[in-house]
Amino acid sequence: MTIHVGDRIPEVTLKRIREGMETIDTHALFDSRKAVLFGVPGAFTPTCSARHLPGFIEQFPEFRHRGIEVFCMAVNDPFVMKAWGESQQVPDGLQLLSDGNGEFTRALGLEMDASSSGMGIRSRRFALYVEDGVVRETFIEEPGKFEVSSAQYVLEHLPR
Amino acid sequence: MTIHVGDRIPEVTLKRIREGMETIDTHALFDSRKAVLFGVPGAFTPTCSARHLPGFIEQFPEFRHRGIEVFCMAVNDPFVMKAWGESQQVPDGLQLLSDGNGEFTRALGLEMDASSSGMGIRSRRFALYVEDGVVRETFIEEPGKFEVSSAQYVLEHLPR
Repeated sequence: MTIHVGDRIPEVTLKRIREGMETIDTHALFDSRKAVLFGVPGAFTPTCSARHLPGFIEQFPEFRHRGIEVFCMAVNDPFVMKAWGESQQVPDGLQLLSDGNGEFTRALGLEMDASSSGMGIRSRRFALYVEDGVVRETFIEEPGKFEVSSAQYVLEHLPR
Repeated sequence: MTIHVGDRIPEVTLKRIREGMETIDTHALFDSRKAVLFGVPGAFTPTCSARHLPGFIEQFPEFRHRGIEVFCMAVNDPFVMKAWGESQQVPDGLQLLSDGNGEFTRALGLEMDASSSGMGIRSRRFALYVEDGVVRETFIEEPGKFEVSSAQYVLEHLPR
Protein backbone atom coordinates (compact mmCIF):
# COMPACT_ATOMS: atom_id res chain seq x y z
CA MET A 1 0.00 0.00 0.00
CA THR A 2 1.43 3.33 -1.03
CA ILE A 3 1.35 5.96 1.70
CA HIS A 4 -1.50 8.47 1.52
CA VAL A 5 -2.41 11.88 2.87
CA GLY A 6 -3.49 11.44 6.49
CA ASP A 7 -1.28 8.40 7.13
CA ARG A 8 1.21 8.44 9.97
CA ILE A 9 4.85 8.00 8.89
CA PRO A 10 5.79 4.37 9.64
CA GLU A 11 8.28 3.81 12.42
CA VAL A 12 11.57 2.27 11.30
CA THR A 13 15.19 3.27 11.68
CA LEU A 14 17.48 4.98 9.19
CA LYS A 15 21.24 5.50 9.27
CA ARG A 16 23.40 8.56 8.92
CA ILE A 17 27.13 9.12 9.27
CA ARG A 18 28.42 12.40 10.64
CA GLU A 19 31.08 11.94 13.32
CA GLY A 20 30.19 8.27 13.46
CA MET A 21 27.33 5.95 12.46
CA GLU A 22 24.00 7.12 13.85
CA THR A 23 20.69 5.25 13.97
CA ILE A 24 17.64 7.48 13.60
CA ASP A 25 14.07 6.61 14.51
CA THR A 26 11.65 8.00 11.92
CA HIS A 27 9.10 9.01 14.54
CA ALA A 28 11.71 11.04 16.40
CA LEU A 29 12.72 12.56 13.06
CA PHE A 30 9.26 13.70 11.96
CA ASP A 31 7.39 14.32 15.19
CA SER A 32 6.88 17.91 16.37
CA ARG A 33 7.98 19.55 13.15
CA LYS A 34 7.16 20.30 9.53
CA ALA A 35 9.31 18.46 7.02
CA VAL A 36 9.66 17.57 3.37
CA LEU A 37 11.12 14.15 2.72
CA PHE A 38 12.23 13.46 -0.81
CA GLY A 39 13.34 10.07 -2.02
CA VAL A 40 15.60 9.29 -4.95
CA PRO A 41 16.37 6.05 -6.79
CA GLY A 42 20.10 6.36 -6.28
CA ALA A 43 22.96 8.47 -5.04
CA PHE A 44 25.34 9.40 -7.86
CA THR A 45 22.74 8.65 -10.57
CA PRO A 46 22.25 11.30 -13.25
CA THR A 47 18.82 12.80 -12.48
CA CYS A 48 19.25 12.57 -8.71
CA SER A 49 22.69 14.22 -8.82
CA ALA A 50 22.16 16.80 -11.55
CA ARG A 51 18.60 17.90 -10.85
CA HIS A 52 16.67 16.51 -7.88
CA LEU A 53 19.12 17.07 -5.01
CA PRO A 54 20.54 20.32 -6.46
CA GLY A 55 17.03 21.75 -6.66
CA PHE A 56 16.47 21.12 -2.96
CA ILE A 57 19.90 22.55 -2.14
CA GLU A 58 19.00 25.70 -4.07
CA GLN A 59 15.59 26.04 -2.40
CA PHE A 60 16.78 24.96 1.05
CA PRO A 61 16.82 28.54 2.43
CA GLU A 62 13.22 29.01 1.27
CA PHE A 63 12.09 25.80 2.99
CA ARG A 64 13.90 26.88 6.14
CA HIS A 65 12.34 30.33 5.90
CA ARG A 66 8.94 28.61 5.99
CA GLY A 67 9.98 26.54 9.02
CA ILE A 68 10.25 23.29 7.05
CA GLU A 69 13.04 20.75 7.47
CA VAL A 70 14.34 18.94 4.39
CA PHE A 71 15.31 15.28 4.43
CA CYS A 72 16.62 13.26 1.47
CA MET A 73 16.58 9.47 1.50
CA ALA A 74 17.68 6.65 -0.78
CA VAL A 75 18.20 2.90 -0.64
CA ASN A 76 21.95 3.47 -0.49
CA ASP A 77 24.17 2.68 2.47
CA PRO A 78 25.26 5.44 4.87
CA PHE A 79 28.81 5.53 3.49
CA VAL A 80 27.56 6.17 -0.03
CA MET A 81 25.07 8.79 1.18
CA LYS A 82 27.85 10.60 3.05
CA ALA A 83 30.14 10.56 0.01
CA TRP A 84 27.31 11.76 -2.21
CA GLY A 85 26.47 14.60 0.16
CA GLU A 86 30.09 15.72 0.20
CA SER A 87 30.36 15.57 -3.58
CA GLN A 88 27.20 17.69 -3.83
CA GLN A 89 28.24 20.14 -1.11
CA VAL A 90 24.98 19.65 0.75
CA PRO A 91 24.46 22.48 3.27
CA ASP A 92 24.38 21.86 7.01
CA GLY A 93 20.84 21.05 8.05
CA LEU A 94 19.74 19.32 4.86
CA GLN A 95 19.89 15.75 6.07
CA LEU A 96 20.82 12.82 3.83
CA LEU A 97 19.41 9.64 5.30
CA SER A 98 20.28 6.07 4.41
CA ASP A 99 17.55 3.44 4.03
CA GLY A 100 20.19 0.89 3.09
CA ASN A 101 18.06 -2.17 3.79
CA GLY A 102 15.02 -0.63 2.11
CA GLU A 103 12.81 -1.01 5.18
CA PHE A 104 11.46 2.53 5.22
CA THR A 105 10.92 2.49 1.47
CA ARG A 106 8.88 -0.73 1.68
CA ALA A 107 6.95 0.56 4.70
CA LEU A 108 6.00 3.63 2.61
CA GLY A 109 4.97 1.37 -0.28
CA LEU A 110 7.34 3.26 -2.57
CA GLU A 111 9.76 0.53 -3.63
CA MET A 112 10.60 -0.28 -7.25
CA ASP A 113 12.64 -2.99 -8.90
CA ALA A 114 15.75 -1.48 -10.50
CA SER A 115 17.50 -4.83 -10.97
CA SER A 116 17.71 -4.34 -14.72
CA SER A 117 20.13 -1.47 -14.06
CA GLY A 118 22.07 -3.52 -11.52
CA MET A 119 20.56 -1.57 -8.65
CA GLY A 120 18.33 -4.11 -6.93
CA ILE A 121 15.26 -2.79 -5.09
CA ARG A 122 15.20 1.00 -4.78
CA SER A 123 12.88 3.84 -3.91
CA ARG A 124 10.68 5.55 -6.46
CA ARG A 125 11.30 9.26 -6.89
CA PHE A 126 8.93 11.13 -4.60
CA ALA A 127 8.44 13.86 -2.05
CA LEU A 128 6.18 13.91 1.00
CA TYR A 129 5.15 16.90 3.06
CA VAL A 130 4.77 15.84 6.68
CA GLU A 131 3.50 17.70 9.73
CA ASP A 132 3.95 16.21 13.22
CA GLY A 133 4.58 12.80 11.68
CA VAL A 134 1.41 12.80 9.53
CA VAL A 135 1.55 13.02 5.74
CA ARG A 136 -0.16 16.19 4.53
CA GLU A 137 0.73 16.03 0.81
CA THR A 138 2.27 13.46 -1.54
CA PHE A 139 4.29 14.09 -4.69
CA ILE A 140 5.00 10.68 -6.22
CA GLU A 141 6.54 10.38 -9.67
CA GLU A 142 5.65 7.83 -12.29
CA PRO A 143 8.71 5.66 -13.09
CA GLY A 144 11.27 7.59 -15.13
CA LYS A 145 9.58 10.95 -14.59
CA PHE A 146 10.81 14.00 -12.73
CA GLU A 147 7.99 16.50 -12.51
CA VAL A 148 5.99 16.69 -9.29
CA SER A 149 8.73 15.96 -6.74
CA SER A 150 11.05 18.85 -7.60
CA ALA A 151 11.81 21.41 -4.92
CA GLN A 152 10.16 24.14 -6.98
CA TYR A 153 6.97 22.14 -7.58
CA VAL A 154 6.73 21.10 -3.93
CA LEU A 155 7.17 24.69 -2.74
CA GLU A 156 4.41 25.83 -5.06
CA HIS A 157 2.02 23.08 -3.92
CA LEU A 158 2.41 22.98 -0.16
CA PRO A 159 -0.97 22.83 1.58
CA ARG A 160 -2.06 26.18 3.02
CA MET B 1 28.81 -23.34 -1.31
CA THR B 2 31.83 -21.07 -1.28
CA ILE B 3 33.91 -21.20 -4.43
CA HIS B 4 37.01 -23.42 -4.31
CA VAL B 5 40.27 -23.89 -6.17
CA GLY B 6 39.49 -25.79 -9.38
CA ASP B 7 35.97 -24.39 -9.74
CA ARG B 8 34.95 -22.58 -12.88
CA ILE B 9 33.85 -18.97 -12.37
CA PRO B 10 30.02 -18.93 -12.49
CA GLU B 11 28.43 -17.24 -15.47
CA VAL B 12 26.39 -14.16 -14.62
CA THR B 13 26.45 -10.57 -15.81
CA LEU B 14 27.97 -7.52 -14.15
CA LYS B 15 27.59 -3.83 -14.97
CA ARG B 16 30.08 -1.08 -15.64
CA ILE B 17 29.68 2.53 -16.71
CA ARG B 18 32.30 4.12 -18.95
CA GLU B 19 30.80 6.02 -21.88
CA GLY B 20 27.45 4.41 -21.08
CA MET B 21 26.07 1.44 -19.17
CA GLU B 22 27.75 -1.84 -20.20
CA THR B 23 26.69 -5.40 -19.35
CA ILE B 24 29.60 -7.79 -18.95
CA ASP B 25 29.44 -11.57 -19.05
CA THR B 26 31.76 -13.07 -16.42
CA HIS B 27 32.89 -15.88 -18.74
CA ALA B 28 33.91 -13.36 -21.39
CA LEU B 29 35.68 -11.40 -18.66
CA PHE B 30 37.77 -14.25 -17.25
CA ASP B 31 38.27 -16.61 -20.18
CA SER B 32 41.63 -16.63 -21.99
CA ARG B 33 43.46 -14.58 -19.42
CA LYS B 34 44.99 -14.46 -15.96
CA ALA B 35 43.16 -12.25 -13.50
CA VAL B 36 42.83 -11.31 -9.87
CA LEU B 37 39.32 -10.45 -8.77
CA PHE B 38 38.98 -8.78 -5.42
CA GLY B 39 35.68 -8.14 -3.71
CA VAL B 40 34.91 -5.51 -1.11
CA PRO B 41 31.93 -5.02 1.20
CA GLY B 42 31.26 -1.49 0.02
CA ALA B 43 32.43 1.41 -2.10
CA PHE B 44 33.22 4.45 0.04
CA THR B 45 33.58 2.38 3.24
CA PRO B 46 36.69 2.99 5.35
CA THR B 47 38.78 -0.16 4.87
CA CYS B 48 37.84 -0.58 1.22
CA SER B 49 38.63 3.06 0.40
CA ALA B 50 41.68 3.63 2.59
CA ARG B 51 43.45 0.28 2.27
CA HIS B 52 42.05 -2.45 0.02
CA LEU B 53 41.55 -0.60 -3.28
CA PRO B 54 44.56 1.71 -2.79
CA GLY B 55 46.80 -1.36 -2.31
CA PHE B 56 45.69 -2.77 -5.65
CA ILE B 57 46.13 0.62 -7.30
CA GLU B 58 49.68 0.78 -5.96
CA GLN B 59 50.52 -2.77 -7.07
CA PHE B 60 48.62 -2.58 -10.37
CA PRO B 61 51.82 -2.12 -12.45
CA GLU B 62 53.32 -5.24 -10.84
CA PHE B 63 50.20 -7.31 -11.63
CA ARG B 64 50.27 -6.02 -15.20
CA HIS B 65 54.00 -6.78 -15.44
CA ARG B 66 53.12 -10.39 -14.60
CA GLY B 67 50.39 -10.45 -17.25
CA ILE B 68 47.56 -10.41 -14.71
CA GLU B 69 44.39 -8.32 -15.05
CA VAL B 70 42.87 -6.77 -11.91
CA PHE B 71 39.13 -6.57 -11.35
CA CYS B 72 37.39 -5.10 -8.30
CA MET B 73 33.77 -5.89 -7.52
CA ALA B 74 31.19 -4.91 -4.92
CA VAL B 75 27.45 -5.17 -4.36
CA ASN B 76 27.10 -1.50 -5.26
CA ASP B 77 25.34 -0.15 -8.30
CA PRO B 78 27.33 0.94 -11.38
CA PHE B 79 26.81 4.66 -10.67
CA VAL B 80 28.30 4.32 -7.20
CA MET B 81 31.19 2.18 -8.51
CA LYS B 82 31.98 4.80 -11.15
CA ALA B 83 31.92 7.63 -8.59
CA TRP B 84 34.10 5.61 -6.22
CA GLY B 85 36.62 4.88 -8.97
CA GLU B 86 36.83 8.56 -9.85
CA SER B 87 37.27 9.58 -6.21
CA GLN B 88 40.08 7.02 -5.88
CA GLN B 89 41.72 7.92 -9.19
CA VAL B 90 41.70 4.32 -10.34
CA PRO B 91 44.10 3.84 -13.26
CA ASP B 92 42.91 2.85 -16.73
CA GLY B 93 42.79 -0.91 -16.98
CA LEU B 94 41.91 -1.64 -13.36
CA GLN B 95 38.24 -2.45 -13.81
CA LEU B 96 35.59 -1.65 -11.18
CA LEU B 97 32.63 -3.94 -11.69
CA SER B 98 29.16 -3.61 -10.24
CA ASP B 99 27.35 -6.66 -8.88
CA GLY B 100 24.46 -4.44 -7.88
CA ASN B 101 21.90 -7.21 -7.56
CA GLY B 102 24.35 -9.50 -5.73
CA GLU B 103 23.99 -12.33 -8.26
CA PHE B 104 27.69 -12.93 -8.80
CA THR B 105 28.40 -12.67 -5.08
CA ARG B 106 25.73 -15.28 -4.29
CA ALA B 107 26.94 -17.54 -7.13
CA LEU B 108 30.44 -17.40 -5.61
CA GLY B 109 28.99 -18.21 -2.17
CA LEU B 110 30.63 -15.10 -0.76
CA GLU B 111 27.62 -13.10 0.44
CA MET B 112 27.28 -11.69 3.94
CA ASP B 113 24.48 -9.92 5.76
CA ALA B 114 25.49 -6.32 6.47
CA SER B 115 21.95 -5.19 7.33
CA SER B 116 23.01 -4.11 10.81
CA SER B 117 25.09 -1.36 9.15
CA GLY B 118 22.23 -0.45 6.81
CA MET B 119 23.97 -2.11 3.88
CA GLY B 120 21.76 -5.11 3.13
CA ILE B 121 23.42 -8.18 1.59
CA ARG B 122 27.02 -7.57 0.52
CA SER B 123 30.13 -9.40 -0.53
CA ARG B 124 32.70 -10.65 1.95
CA ARG B 125 36.18 -9.23 1.49
CA PHE B 126 38.15 -11.61 -0.71
CA ALA B 127 40.47 -12.08 -3.66
CA LEU B 128 40.51 -14.89 -6.23
CA TYR B 129 43.28 -15.71 -8.66
CA VAL B 130 41.74 -17.05 -11.87
CA GLU B 131 43.33 -18.53 -15.00
CA ASP B 132 41.21 -19.11 -18.10
CA GLY B 133 38.05 -18.88 -16.02
CA VAL B 134 39.15 -21.45 -13.42
CA VAL B 135 39.96 -20.47 -9.84
CA ARG B 136 43.60 -21.26 -9.03
CA GLU B 137 43.84 -19.65 -5.58
CA THR B 138 41.42 -18.18 -3.03
CA PHE B 139 42.09 -15.45 -0.47
CA ILE B 140 38.92 -15.13 1.59
CA GLU B 141 38.83 -12.98 4.72
CA GLU B 142 37.03 -13.80 7.92
CA PRO B 143 34.40 -11.12 8.66
CA GLY B 144 35.99 -7.87 9.80
CA LYS B 145 39.52 -8.94 8.84
CA PHE B 146 41.84 -7.54 6.19
CA GLU B 147 44.86 -9.81 5.95
CA VAL B 148 44.96 -12.35 3.13
CA SER B 149 43.19 -10.43 0.37
CA SER B 150 45.58 -7.45 0.20
CA ALA B 151 47.39 -6.78 -3.05
CA GLN B 152 50.74 -7.40 -1.36
CA TYR B 153 49.66 -10.73 0.16
CA VAL B 154 48.10 -11.91 -3.08
CA LEU B 155 51.24 -11.04 -5.07
CA GLU B 156 53.38 -12.99 -2.60
CA HIS B 157 51.09 -16.04 -2.72
CA LEU B 158 50.26 -16.48 -6.38
CA PRO B 159 50.62 -20.09 -7.48
CA ARG B 160 53.83 -20.80 -9.41
